[in-house]
Amino acid sequence: MRILITGATGFVGSNLTHYFIDQGYSVTVTVRDSSSFYNLKDINDKIDTILYDGTITSLKKGIKDKNIDTVLHLASLFIAEHKTDDIDNLITSNILFGTQLLEAMKVCGVKKIINTGTSWQYYHQETYNPVSLYAATKHAFSNILEYYIQAEGFKAIDLILYDTYGENDNRGKLINLLHQFSDSKKVLDMSKGEQRLYFVHISDVCYAYKVALTLLDKTNTTHPIYSVRGNINYSLKEMVYLFEQVTGKNLKINWGKRAYRKREVMNPFSVGQIMPNWESKISLAEGLKLLHQSD
Amino acid sequence: MRILITGATGFVGSNLTHYFIDQGYSVTVTVRDSSSFYNLKDINDKIDTILYDGTITSLKKGIKDKNIDTVLHLASLFIAEHKTDDIDNLITSNILFGTQLLEAMKVCGVKKIINTGTSWQYYHQETYNPVSLYAATKHAFSNILEYYIQAEGFKAIDLILYDTYGENDNRGKLINLLHQFSDSKKVLDMSKGEQRLYFVHISDVCYAYKVALTLLDKTNTTHPIYSVRGNINYSLKEMVYLFEQVTGKNLKINWGKRAYRKREVMNPFSVGQIMPNWESKISLAEGLKLLHQSD
Repeated sequence: MRILITGATGFVGSNLTHYFIDQGYSVTVTVRDSSSFYNLKDINDKIDTILYDGTITSLKKGIKDKNIDTVLHLASLFIAEHKTDDIDNLITSNILFGTQLLEAMKVCGVKKIINTGTSWQYYHQETYNPVSLYAATKHAFSNILEYYIQAEGFKAIDLILYDTYGENDNRGKLINLLHQFSDSKKVLDMSKGEQRLYFVHISDVCYAYKVALTLLDKTNTTHPIYSVRGNINYSLKEMVYLFEQVTGKNLKINWGKRAYRKREVMNPFSVGQIMPNWESKISLAEGLKLLHQSD
Repeated sequence: MRILITGATGFVGSNLTHYFIDQGYSVTVTVRDSSSFYNLKDINDKIDTILYDGTITSLKKGIKDKNIDTVLHLASLFIAEHKTDDIDNLITSNILFGTQLLEAMKVCGVKKIINTGTSWQYYHQETYNPVSLYAATKHAFSNILEYYIQAEGFKAIDLILYDTYGENDNRGKLINLLHQFSDSKKVLDMSKGEQRLYFVHISDVCYAYKVALTLLDKTNTTHPIYSVRGNINYSLKEMVYLFEQVTGKNLKINWGKRAYRKREVMNPFSVGQIMPNWESKISLAEGLKLLHQSD
């Protein structure tokens, strides 16, 4: 099966790219001129690329040339709390690019896509209530995808991601900071740490996309939304204690020094159904151990 | 009350602009360099303008300078059946511009907006199912507006418009073609004409925005969606017969010569609640008479 992965240079995307190469898939990724290929440099010779130059034409040509069967759409610009200057980039990255992609797929007769959503589309509730403008743009794109499903017969699954983590993650997430700070004497200023999160190890995430690929052909639901998460959530504080237990390290954290975000998610909403035929295999304790051993 | 109208050079927007000037409101409109001012030239000296140059900065400055209280957002690019080349314009006009507007409002502390939706967001059903990509982009924008409501305390009403018509409308809608063709000997090629529509006269639409302005301050619902339509819908064919009755003209129409659109709306879905404290005052027969007498 020939898949196209967008956002392949990011943490989740690059892990997916490695994973599907290992699984024997033929993998193409979209890149921009300016894309950092760092996360993919070891498999440079095993992947095909489509150079996206901002136009649908470049995507169309690539999808046709590479004879793509299914798209895994990961590309997105994440901004937790946007500033006014971020608006144009948020719309361009999270809505325009995706719509160009769908249109290019349509023109090429490619109609299968796994789209990536965020639990932040569901602040406090089952129905849509975006935590951030980022989450709103993700939801807006899913609305546009719905048109291609209804009018053009696309088959699509939205996978809702929670807090992903894993080895070699250079995003500025707390879980990575812990790992980096665990041997230093630095003190980390934190919020009270009572916000609860579903932590999902990257290998579980990769497996979820594989299961979704299988489901995509079988499902009768038009646009299912599946959550990719385990059954247990942890507060940030609990996660840190677990990290200390697992690693035997003692972290210096100034709890309560920082304020919560304006719309901090204190209890993640367990939206939709957990993805069928899939379950989280790596507990947080195991995942933290893997992270700690990864140096 | 100082209102800002976007899309003021269009049919609905220009009628609203005239209407609110007549009602004694202080009206500002957004224009682009390239905007045709044709529909507003007679009230050029009675309106203020904000020159939108593609940036949030231009909107921010305008909203602040004009001390805007409430925004009526009408601007949109309507395309019934899009082509691949339309994608970028659809996203830019129907999502990016609106998001820039909301952000500019936020920065200026302006939090009241009446947004304009389309019945095409609801093909066949009460829940979202877009007839066209145009409708999908309108819905996507409404989802972005939801963020500003939930996170920034905006007050908003979505008015869902059906088929608007009236005097001096130069959009290529059938109802206008009838008016133009009624004295010629030309034959008009049409579909079978069995698709049903809610026709709403522009003066009823204008009044709906005025009622919405009043409701905006009173309502406790966070993001109400109100339909602007009468209780009776007509098939295209019925509308043409009515036109002939009202005007005494005999139209030459080749019914069934053209195919229906791929996603022709045969029965318009009566979405949401009809706007409270408002009702359609001009029947289709009366509206057609006004149209006919308007030469």
